[in-house]
Amino acid sequence: MPIASQPVQDILHEVYHEMQPHIGEGKVADYIPALARIDPKKFGMAVVTAEGEVFTVGDAAEPFSIQSVSKVFTLTLALGRIGAGLWSRVGREPSGTAFNSIVQLEHEHGIPRNPFINAGAIVVADVLLAGHQPRETLGEILQFFRYLSGDDSVYIDEDVARSEQATGFRNAALANYMSAFGNIHNPVEKTLGVYYHQCSLAMSCEQLAKAGLFLANGGRNPVSGLTVVTRERARRINALMITCGHYDASGDFAFRVGLPGKSGVGGGILAIAPGKASIAVWSPGLNANGNSATGTRALELFAKKSGWSVFG
Amino acid sequence: MPIASQPVQDILHEVYHEMQPHIGEGKVADYIPALARIDPKKFGMAVVTAEGEVFTVGDAAEPFSIQSVSKVFTLTLALGRIGAGLWSRVGREPSGTAFNSIVQLEHEHGIPRNPFINAGAIVVADVLLAGHQPRETLGEILQFFRYLSGDDSVYIDEDVARSEQATGFRNAALANYMSAFGNIHNPVEKTLGVYYHQCSLAMSCEQLAKAGLFLANGGRNPVSGLTVVTRERARRINALMITCGHYDASGDFAFRVGLPGKSGVGGGILAIAPGKASIAVWSPGLNANGNSATGTRALELFAKKSGWSVFG
Amino acid sequence: MPIASQPVQDILHEVYHEMQPHIGEGKVADYIPALARIDPKKFGMAVVTAEGEVFTVGDAAEPFSIQSVSKVFTLTLALGRIGAGLWSRVGREPSGTAFNSIVQLEHEHGIPRNPFINAGAIVVADVLLAGHQPRETLGEILQFFRYLSGDDSVYIDEDVARSEQATGFRNAALANYMSAFGNIHNPVEKTLGVYYHQCSLAMSCEQLAKAGLFLANGGRNPVSGLTVVTRERARRINALMITCGHYDASGDFAFRVGLPGKSGVGGGILAIAPGKASIAVWSPGLNANGNSATGTRALELFAKKSGWSVFG
Amino acid sequence: MPIASQPVQDILHEVYHEMQPHIGEGKVADYIPALARIDPKKFGMAVVTAEGEVFTVGDAAEPFSIQSVSKVFTLTLALGRIGAGLWSRVGREPSGTAFNSIVQLEHEHGIPRNPFINAGAIVVADVLLAGHQPRETLGEILQFFRYLSGDDSVYIDEDVARSEQATGFRNAALANYMSAFGNIHNPVEKTLGVYYHQCSLAMSCEQLAKAGLFLANGGRNPVSGLTVVTRERARRINALMITCGHYDASGDFAFRVGLPGKSGVGGGILAIAPGKASIAVWSPGLNANGNSATGTRALELFAKKSGWSVFG
Repeated sequence: MPIASQPVQDILHEVYHEMQPHIGEGKVADYIPALARIDPKKFGMAVVTAEGEVFTVGDAAEPFSIQSVSKVFTLTLALGRIGAGLWSRVGREPSGTAFNSIVQLEHEHGIPRNPFINAGAIVVADVLLAGHQPRETLGEILQFFRYLSGDDSVYIDEDVARSEQATGFRNAALANYMSAFGNIHNPVEKTLGVYYHQCSLAMSCEQLAKAGLFLANGGRNPVSGLTVVTRERARRINALMITCGHYDASGDFAFRVGLPGKSGVGGGILAIAPGKASIAVWSPGLNANGNSATGTRALELFAKKSGWSVFG
Repeated sequence: MPIASQPVQDILHEVYHEMQPHIGEGKVADYIPALARIDPKKFGMAVVTAEGEVFTVGDAAEPFSIQSVSKVFTLTLALGRIGAGLWSRVGREPSGTAFNSIVQLEHEHGIPRNPFINAGAIVVADVLLAGHQPRETLGEILQFFRYLSGDDSVYIDEDVARSEQATGFRNAALANYMSAFGNIHNPVEKTLGVYYHQCSLAMSCEQLAKAGLFLANGGRNPVSGLTVVTRERARRINALMITCGHYDASGDFAFRVGLPGKSGVGGGILAIAPGKASIAVWSPGLNANGNSATGTRALELFAKKSGWSVFG
Repeated sequence: MPIASQPVQDILHEVYHEMQPHIGEGKVADYIPALARIDPKKFGMAVVTAEGEVFTVGDAAEPFSIQSVSKVFTLTLALGRIGAGLWSRVGREPSGTAFNSIVQLEHEHGIPRNPFINAGAIVVADVLLAGHQPRETLGEILQFFRYLSGDDSVYIDEDVARSEQATGFRNAALANYMSAFGNIHNPVEKTLGVYYHQCSLAMSCEQLAKAGLFLANGGRNPVSGLTVVTRERARRINALMITCGHYDASGDFAFRVGLPGKSGVGGGILAIAPGKASIAVWSPGLNANGNSATGTRALELFAKKSGWSVFG
Repeated sequence: MPIASQPVQDILHEVYHEMQPHIGEGKVADYIPALARIDPKKFGMAVVTAEGEVFTVGDAAEPFSIQSVSKVFTLTLALGRIGAGLWSRVGREPSGTAFNSIVQLEHEHGIPRNPFINAGAIVVADVLLAGHQPRETLGEILQFFRYLSGDDSVYIDEDVARSEQATGFRNAALANYMSAFGNIHNPVEKTLGVYYHQCSLAMSCEQLAKAGLFLANGGRNPVSGLTVVTRERARRINALMITCGHYDASGDFAFRVGLPGKSGVGGGILAIAPGKASIAVWSPGLNANGNSATGTRALELFAKKSGWSVFG
């Protein structure tokens, strides 16, 4: 059921309209001041089609803290760096536990279940650091985001990064724990430095949707025409998003939305409709699982109206 | 990337050819004699397209014990019976643990993580039993399989069922445990009776692929023209298959094959290519996760050649 | 600090007096009617010294359901039967989990942590059954209690046993689970039959304290003069009681009371002061850990006043 | 069964003699060089009676790294500092898991099960630090050991402390994890600094046995005549040692030895025979549970010959 570009804008507006009563729902993350003071009434959504057309509603141009959505892109970089070798250091199974659980690590010898839980993303950051200085690695990560979104205004919010670092005891526990098993190769504080800064990337829905577009298009950025990853790798990253992208609510997201997606505690979600479009939504209030409440609802409605569910 | 029917047969033959060196790999389930004595060299595969065309190779006409593949269909029946009410008794998240794990039940008050692990399927059987006699419920289940596959020769292997019952201590533990939490409503032995018999259904790849076709076709059986479930429910069952259909190897199956699928310890797998086809494969040797080794490999190759991955 | 017999009676009366405001505290077990209808105001205590002198207060002559206190005695019988061979089927470490937890069994291949959690006591019952009929084994168990207490009026409350059986889904789960690992050798329902009946023994504080006296006296019953177990075995059973006798509150009991002890959900506790006395207390109201609230308090006070703590 | 002082020396010599074939058994801790290079053939044992008499055999005058045996003494100090308030930050139950397990912390909100597992001892160190500089707190700890042993030559091995710090990723994980729950009040690296240094105390068996004597003597040091803790507190520390002093082999130690004891990975064990004596043994080779293999064996034999088991 191919969808012409006009209907996309229509659907987007319908979704925006139907979301109005729900805007502000959920609980904004408050573990650091920079996130806590975000206006809970913000709502933005952007759809970029495989042909490169861009549709937006609401606060789609306003940068927000993408947090764990960044993990999709650092995973892409790490696979580019060491390929399938990554899978000896991190699994690719849903964890069945919360994003910051340490229990699984003890039972499985310091190998995180997948690259989207915190422990797994810290290993990915460690792969990217690879003996370099955090500054260099972060420069490379930032460059990748700017390249993918075609927008040099993407930046790392140092204020957020500092706060993450100051309060990140559970992440420090995860990194130290994996270090004890030899699964962190750099000094713990350097690896965490990279991780906290990648989580502090500030991007708008429009930038984020553009950045994810290669995943909806067989690995190729249709705007630049350049191949980011092979079709097979794009498929596999999408597969990981659908089984692991929403922590212990991944099953629920697949059930309700039917698209590969990755959420962040800043209220952003990136969803991929393979062959169709890359979609980003932002609404700061979180549900009980730590995913954007209204953002998930908006994607559910959008997927229903567009018929873009990968499940038929 | 639409695939005409001729190429499907070609792809199927290529896959069959490339699987030859792998036929017989893995370890046949041996916990009951009826499974242990199956010839490990068996291999069959059937593809039924959304248009109703049927393609087969190898032992696709020979009945085998479908075991846990049956859970897809009893879930469909239970949703038809009590709808979304089912989700108060069983979750829809990947478990992160083995098919017969009881740990999660203790941590989550007797609510199984999803309907495809044994505990969840036992709850589903309990829903279907609903105060009736096992014989009646089993008649209904059998009827459903015969209707879906359009073949009255589908049968329950009583020999297998008896053996399952005689050795099913872990399943008895799961059922009693859930009963302690009030999540089994019928006498434990009756519910288990239904469960063991549904697992003992004998079907061929061709019958199984036909039975699953409604899931590839928006909920409607294209042969009979009858609607089995709504499009939305078909999507959701597919979503559950991709996140939970292979126990603690569900992530790996999504990563490698990219299709919703459900495996059974008899060596069968049902995979759904939404909008394209229903696919069944049978190869008795299991991999370390208890899923058909060569069957998974065949589906991986078929998905690659057909481009039917849901992930683009 | 030797204590003459006169002071024992004095201490007992002081304890009884000081307990008055606490009698009736806690929550009576209500999972079966026969326990639920017990008067929460009951309180009895009996001390039998190593010299065989008997001191009692309150309802010390009234029989109550000893429940898990029976596990001390069936363990004694099983050690007599198969000696150290028992330790290949059950551990001797505190479990760190609740009395009816099944998690540990999954992690440790069906070997219960110790003989005082339900799973461990079920294995002990299975050892005693050993191919016989439950009726015979129960006769032997009952005989053992009557012999130790020197009182043929000890009996099994069939009403309680039937209720235990009818509601014992978690115990059935444990037994079936261990059966799956080959750690139950008799038919599950027979082993459970023995277990439920042993838990349904009705005894008074006086009978119970007399029955436990051999543990306070180097394995020898000072009244009959007969040796029940060797001194070494008596020590070891006491050691198990102090580390494992109160489930996940064993540490607390050792900390507060300082004596080996075993509690039952009927509100009874047997405590051993090695070289001094055997003590039984009964008060039906349970604390949050499922041990007699006022019974524990009474023992704490008694141990303090008598100076009988094993810890100096 | 009172034991005169002459027999103690005799028993000690018999034990020493019978241990000869076992000296060198077990595996020396090798996670840091300073421990790995210890001669596995070392064996020393010291008994200090409640009357202050000292008996020794073997290498009882040679200092070794007391490691976790130090936890008994820092616990004593912390109870002196904040009393029962400590129990809101650390439990007093056996953990059922390894000394460095983090699983329990996740399930129980950052409250360690007891003060003798690593996490619990880190909380105790944090209590002692209490806003001071590590140097001051360590001075106080060292002073306490010197006072108790009556020997100013007790020292902290800085080489060991540095190595502990350099390799202590799991301890860093534990401390950071508890910090996330607010159960570490000082900067993590300062608290860990105290912890690593206390574990690096070097003492001989004779010094250690003298230091522990107050626990065998109702809280009073019979040599100095000074009261270290109340009788009740001494009892309670002994209770904690018997239920939790040997990690997940505490039950086994109580079963075999029958005395409160605390082991260290350096191969030392302190055991308390209340009213009788304080006993220290050192043999570097560890058993599978990380406790001194021959040290445990020696204590088992000593307890048997002396009849000092607390269990009769």
